[in-house]
Amino acid sequence: MDFDAMFNAQLGALKEEGNYRIFAELERRCGQFPRAKSHDDDAPDEVTVWCSNDYLGMGQHPVVRQAMKDAIDSCGTGAGGTRNISGTNHHHVALERELADLHGKEDALLFTSGYVSNWAALSTLGSRLPDAVILSDALNHASMIEGIRHSRAQKVIWKHNDPEDLDRKLAALPANAPKIVAFESVYSMDGDICPMAEIVEVAEKHGAMTYLDEVHAVGLYGPRGGGLSEREGLADRITLIEGTLGKAFGCMGGYIAGSPALCDFIRSFASGFIFTTALPPAVAAAAQASIAHLKVSQIERAQQRRQVARMRAMLDARGIPHMENPSHIIPVPIKDPVKCRMLADILMRDYGIYVQPINYPTVPKGTERLRFTPGPLHTDADIDRVVEALDVLWKQCAIAHAVA
Amino acid sequence: MDFDAMFNAQLGALKEEGNYRIFAELERRCGQFPRAKSHDDDAPDEVTVWCSNDYLGMGQHPVVRQAMKDAIDSCGTGAGGTRNISGTNHHHVALERELADLHGKEDALLFTSGYVSNWAALSTLGSRLPDAVILSDALNHASMIEGIRHSRAQKVIWKHNDPEDLDRKLAALPANAPKIVAFESVYSMDGDICPMAEIVEVAEKHGAMTYLDEVHAVGLYGPRGGGLSEREGLADRITLIEGTLGKAFGCMGGYIAGSPALCDFIRSFASGFIFTTALPPAVAAAAQASIAHLKVSQIERAQQRRQVARMRAMLDARGIPHMENPSHIIPVPIKDPVKCRMLADILMRDYGIYVQPINYPTVPKGTERLRFTPGPLHTDADIDRVVEALDVLWKQCAIAHAVA
Repeated sequence: MDFDAMFNAQLGALKEEGNYRIFAELERRCGQFPRAKSHDDDAPDEVTVWCSNDYLGMGQHPVVRQAMKDAIDSCGTGAGGTRNISGTNHHHVALERELADLHGKEDALLFTSGYVSNWAALSTLGSRLPDAVILSDALNHASMIEGIRHSRAQKVIWKHNDPEDLDRKLAALPANAPKIVAFESVYSMDGDICPMAEIVEVAEKHGAMTYLDEVHAVGLYGPRGGGLSEREGLADRITLIEGTLGKAFGCMGGYIAGSPALCDFIRSFASGFIFTTALPPAVAAAAQASIAHLKVSQIERAQQRRQVARMRAMLDARGIPHMENPSHIIPVPIKDPVKCRMLADILMRDYGIYVQPINYPTVPKGTERLRFTPGPLHTDADIDRVVEALDVLWKQCAIAHAVA
Repeated sequence: MDFDAMFNAQLGALKEEGNYRIFAELERRCGQFPRAKSHDDDAPDEVTVWCSNDYLGMGQHPVVRQAMKDAIDSCGTGAGGTRNISGTNHHHVALERELADLHGKEDALLFTSGYVSNWAALSTLGSRLPDAVILSDALNHASMIEGIRHSRAQKVIWKHNDPEDLDRKLAALPANAPKIVAFESVYSMDGDICPMAEIVEVAEKHGAMTYLDEVHAVGLYGPRGGGLSEREGLADRITLIEGTLGKAFGCMGGYIAGSPALCDFIRSFASGFIFTTALPPAVAAAAQASIAHLKVSQIERAQQRRQVARMRAMLDARGIPHMENPSHIIPVPIKDPVKCRMLADILMRDYGIYVQPINYPTVPKGTERLRFTPGPLHTDADIDRVVEALDVLWKQCAIAHAVA
């Protein structure tokens, strides 16, 4: 049987749709972020990254780098085993304490990624709580969707960010079924923020557990970087807070925080936690240093907010459309996969501006976009430059439309 | 609804069965492996680790550590995004080339862990190839089982390491259904090795794809550490080789190696690859250094084989049972979860010998064991000491049995 032919047929379809992904090969330059060396022939040698989830540049922070290097010197490079079989290092335990403290919870549990934390936690809750029903926001991340799917629990999708729809759907379920309301604080592709207080109230009214994904919020929101649940004073009313160490904290890994019984339950039953090599102790040490820094330092968050506001104002001044939202994410809608790719290619080739085209399946077809994440290390001149480039391209598009 | 009570009820059942897991909190000491500092009250300050999957001690190798630290200095600590959205670093691309070369394949694809590589690759193959049937060895790892489950493809389990049973089961399937034969080279808990040539022949006879998990073999077997498929000269006849960077290579991460179409297919469609932050570039750099070292250096493998043989001979001399197998893994059967835990506790407390009790669900109930993985850095005196301790405990057990 010719398997390669079967693979190529499906890849060919992707290419025809304009949804085939080409990865930009970069070499991050420590100390110069968001500048990076490009290894692609069609790009200038040096580019400016505009689509990183290293939102605050912590991935190059001296404190974080030093913590990682020190732990390599003291503990080596890998954990050497699963958490159960020789892989639990002092740095993992210390990081779990730091994460519990960050969210004002009694306990926390580390995973190898945010994807795995969502997948493992939701699949375990859904499969091991008899008759559980998971109520999932319509725009939840792939990792949550796959976790729910894997659990084979009953799944009810509620309208995105709509507590009234959630209320109706909870009311229609049997009173004695365990209910899990799964949602995110910041939705990464639209940049919108959930009405957390209303959702929590509805969930409490029906005795449901709340499962909150804060991966695009931890480090960025709240006086200590505890996310939107901290900023809104709601963390103690959320049953489970899930987060990542790979975005604002600049490292890698995911986690959940909650009660000791909850964390112990996932620890004891989740296949995706049990049967995998633990994070390198040095990554845990780096993440802990990053969290500790962002618990007390406000300058990164303040400067990020300033640069996001500045870019929005400049886009408005030039009449370049962008999706309104109260977060740090600026999506510029293109609504066509081929055009989206083309604009990104021109920005890269002619301007050294790297912004990845966001196409299906990351966003629904017809909602393709460029997604900008200005951070504290983008200068005013960087923002001037990117808005100027977009302005030129927008005018060219307008001309193209006019003569078409 | 009292969720904590529901969690505690299931945790209580685990505890009653003796299957509740307690993690040993260690602090690896670079340069002194397999020695580690213990943070547990019931253990001596310094312990010797006997159950690590850092099989060759590469996690503390100077070349690997230096590569990781150099990459932190040049690229920072995290990748900053998914592979598609700003997260592909030069080090990832270079590592994928290294891995393809290691297995004599044209291409390779990195994942955040071996677990994720199995789960993502099998779930994608099973779900996207119409009418696919996955033929799974009865003792395949949890990550493969979950990937197959997630795919919802038809699954056929064949008897462990039995090519005749596989042949019968393949023959019973429709000729035109895509068939995937999934198996491992070294089974980590029994330490037995698959009859690879026979399995490959049976698969080829039926036009099936072969999917081989080599996580407990890469780095350890074959003249360049390419695993048992290299040692047996069969790599070119295996469709997909899956491996890990977290065991013999001493780092973290997983991968697949195969044809460009195969790797591109998984790259383009696997949720667990697409929607997750890439490995830290420094981890990729460290893994590449480790692989490159083990491609040419034989001393680690030779010394490991020597120490494994030495320990087996000494166990035989004392009449201590261990499961026969041709690999580097020495399982000592205990067959009871409570006794298994108790023996491990005594070894830790009284001898500073750390060997994790292997209980359900890692192995079937009634087959609980202590699993020793002697490596090149265990000294002869270390082996003398562990066999002596087991001998004392065995004699005490015999006395206990006699007076019971």
